[in-house]
Amino acid sequence: MKKKFFTQILDHFNFHPQSYQTFQQRYLINDKYWGGPKNNSPIFVYTGNEGEIEWFAQNTGFLFDTAPLFKALLIFIEHRFYGKSIPFGGDKEKAYSNSTTLGYLSSTQALADYATLIIDLKHNLTATDSPVVVFGGSYGGMLAAWFRLKYPHIAIGALASSAPILNFENITSPYSFNNIITQDFRSESENCYKVIKGSWQEIEETAAKSGGSEILRKAFRICKNDTSVGSLGGWLETAYIYTAMTDYPTPSNFLNPLPAFPVKQMCKAIDDPKTGNNTFEKLYGAANIYYNYSGDATCFNLDDDSDPHGLGGWTWQACTEMILPTDGNNAESIFPESVWNYTDRAEICKYIFNIEPRPNWITAEFGAHNIHRVLKRFGSNIIFFNGLRDPWSGGGVLKDISKSIVAIVAKEGAHHVDLRFSTNEDPMWLQEVRRREVHIISKWLSQYYHSLVDSSN
Amino acid sequence: MKKKFFTQILDHFNFHPQSYQTFQQRYLINDKYWGGPKNNSPIFVYTGNEGEIEWFAQNTGFLFDTAPLFKALLIFIEHRFYGKSIPFGGDKEKAYSNSTTLGYLSSTQALADYATLIIDLKHNLTATDSPVVVFGGSYGGMLAAWFRLKYPHIAIGALASSAPILNFENITSPYSFNNIITQDFRSESENCYKVIKGSWQEIEETAAKSGGSEILRKAFRICKNDTSVGSLGGWLETAYIYTAMTDYPTPSNFLNPLPAFPVKQMCKAIDDPKTGNNTFEKLYGAANIYYNYSGDATCFNLDDDSDPHGLGGWTWQACTEMILPTDGNNAESIFPESVWNYTDRAEICKYIFNIEPRPNWITAEFGAHNIHRVLKRFGSNIIFFNGLRDPWSGGGVLKDISKSIVAIVAKEGAHHVDLRFSTNEDPMWLQEVRRREVHIISKWLSQYYHSLVDSSN
Repeated sequence: MKKKFFTQILDHFNFHPQSYQTFQQRYLINDKYWGGPKNNSPIFVYTGNEGEIEWFAQNTGFLFDTAPLFKALLIFIEHRFYGKSIPFGGDKEKAYSNSTTLGYLSSTQALADYATLIIDLKHNLTATDSPVVVFGGSYGGMLAAWFRLKYPHIAIGALASSAPILNFENITSPYSFNNIITQDFRSESENCYKVIKGSWQEIEETAAKSGGSEILRKAFRICKNDTSVGSLGGWLETAYIYTAMTDYPTPSNFLNPLPAFPVKQMCKAIDDPKTGNNTFEKLYGAANIYYNYSGDATCFNLDDDSDPHGLGGWTWQACTEMILPTDGNNAESIFPESVWNYTDRAEICKYIFNIEPRPNWITAEFGAHNIHRVLKRFGSNIIFFNGLRDPWSGGGVLKDISKSIVAIVAKEGAHHVDLRFSTNEDPMWLQEVRRREVHIISKWLSQYYHSLVDSSN
Repeated sequence: MKKKFFTQILDHFNFHPQSYQTFQQRYLINDKYWGGPKNNSPIFVYTGNEGEIEWFAQNTGFLFDTAPLFKALLIFIEHRFYGKSIPFGGDKEKAYSNSTTLGYLSSTQALADYATLIIDLKHNLTATDSPVVVFGGSYGGMLAAWFRLKYPHIAIGALASSAPILNFENITSPYSFNNIITQDFRSESENCYKVIKGSWQEIEETAAKSGGSEILRKAFRICKNDTSVGSLGGWLETAYIYTAMTDYPTPSNFLNPLPAFPVKQMCKAIDDPKTGNNTFEKLYGAANIYYNYSGDATCFNLDDDSDPHGLGGWTWQACTEMILPTDGNNAESIFPESVWNYTDRAEICKYIFNIEPRPNWITAEFGAHNIHRVLKRFGSNIIFFNGLRDPWSGGGVLKDISKSIVAIVAKEGAHHVDLRFSTNEDPMWLQEVRRREVHIISKWLSQYYHSLVDSSN
């Protein structure tokens, strides 16, 4: 993979003098398998999401696995404001200082970045007739789907993996996300679910007791210098959420190193008869799976929210347009009961950035309501993949919209599992998902090549 | 028609504090024929272009003529920076002062304005299930087509009349526009064409002579206090261009009051045997058709470029994104030979606004290259109307793209003639064009109503 930079404009949609400022946008390019422009061999583009582009490239083995088959050029484009693609002279401190600079971090600007970069790249490669297919997972999957919808003249199709494009406004229940996590644990063992569900009160009661903090500190091996026992709940919740999201059938290292079927492993720790009725010991064992699978840690810092993947920008995006109501918890939830409350979000955003979210913008710009009706006779060539063990799947497209806007749903799948490198241990259902994806993309390409030579076009 | 205002945001695509500024966007609403929300009766929206919205409403009788048939609500939305829809507190002087304010005048912002306004309006009318069809002529037609392509979740279809969406970059020849005007005059009489074509040199030679200005002043009844005889060429060119554009089969008053078939009338004046070999007298007669059909003027001010329709903003748009190469003239042209030159445009824009155009932006954002290939299997429900006497038709879509993205072409038609009020004198071909449009729109609506009740959607 070669690292390259493209000179990108700060604002595509207005002509204020400030909009003409440029920055260096990074992209990775791999032409090892490319059939070249003469054969109009395809270009596969990953539409980067909220983090360093290498991270996504490493976790999108599907493109490397299929590139030889398609003789495809691979491009991974980094999203503005992440990784090395920082406006304002690459000065991250300045770019992230306040809303006068962060204001240019938005999904529509990112999509326009991808459009202009791809056009320029194809021009430079004299490959203007090479078909482009876009790929993305999670937010990157939303971007891929939206890119095909908004820029059909640039991408002939999109594979949108685990893209919760329906998780806006009131389309998806705010309880859906945590209910799926609940189901994930429950499907392993009812006891596991009950222990976790009951633990929150026990933690709270212990914390309230005199000497309780010390009990919790010891039980969870919290480092001596870490005084934030109060954030223990959040620390545990994060472990359950991300483990459910990345509940892959093979060992992985997406967010943290994890074994295969990590939810099962967590529940095994919780159900372990050796720990008897000691809830904290059980939870500690579960948390260890997520936070310490390598076994290197001797103690934990709960407030260690170091940001290896540059997720800091996501806080901004979640305060402007990415208002996804996901953290409601109903009576069944494995987490303490709570309601999703937009006002809370707005207040936090006011406090952090002095900014007002635009909670209705994404659906105004990209649509989402009645998507099956709207796209039944509009648009084409999108695959929406979702794994039903992925909490984000609740906001995904789970039913075919038309003959060429299709849903692939894997009951056993987690967050964009289809995009991961294939391994010899991949279960049949996963192999089958990828085979279907390859088959559909082949069809798009052959249709495109036919239309290229069809003189009536 | 009621006049209303909607509070619109200054910039939809970034979150800079400045973007949150609001302005009052004007729209006209006519509910006389509306079947109401209970019946999900349709909403017809005119996507306003570069001028006061009343002007477009007055020249879009098609909506008033067809509203009773469809029981449609009529909405005409004014384009930002035109008419009364002026950002920066409605202060036109401020809004137009320089690129820090004019920067927010762009097509993408206008489309997002329409999207947010329509969503809000439907919500307020409790008519969220009422289908919206968008209509527009010329630049408004481009906006209508682009709106359907970018916001299919808001509009179920678009009638884009005389929308030169292919008149960007190198897709349409820069000679096309003036060649069509040439053809218009030539089709009336070869002599008419030759007289006009030969006149430019005669004017130039006369102007260069001692006392020549006075000769021209007298010949063209230029007012005594007007010293700008040098702009006589531009003044005549404007008359020919706009007369060709509005060469309607019935009397009209779109840009200026004109008789039916005004190009024929101009050529009649030129071919008039009474004026013998007096070229200037002939041209004066032709110019009179365009500038003085009412017969009120006793003399003309050539530099009177008073701007009744607020076209001032178009100069800005033509210097930023609306780079339509139309003013080349080849050897055949009725106008003096010249080449289209982007550098000239860029220099003028630098001079006027100190701004650099983005000549490749429109095609990057909306597409245009290989449109038949790109949209063959993407998108639906667009009618592209073009009249072949309209110089803009060269940049229009003149062939069906798919079953539901269709081209209606009228050999005898001029600039968005289909959208005008019907009259008893309308020729058969024009009645037929409108019948087809009504028929197609009916199909869109009935398909929509079917999908509303189809439980599988």
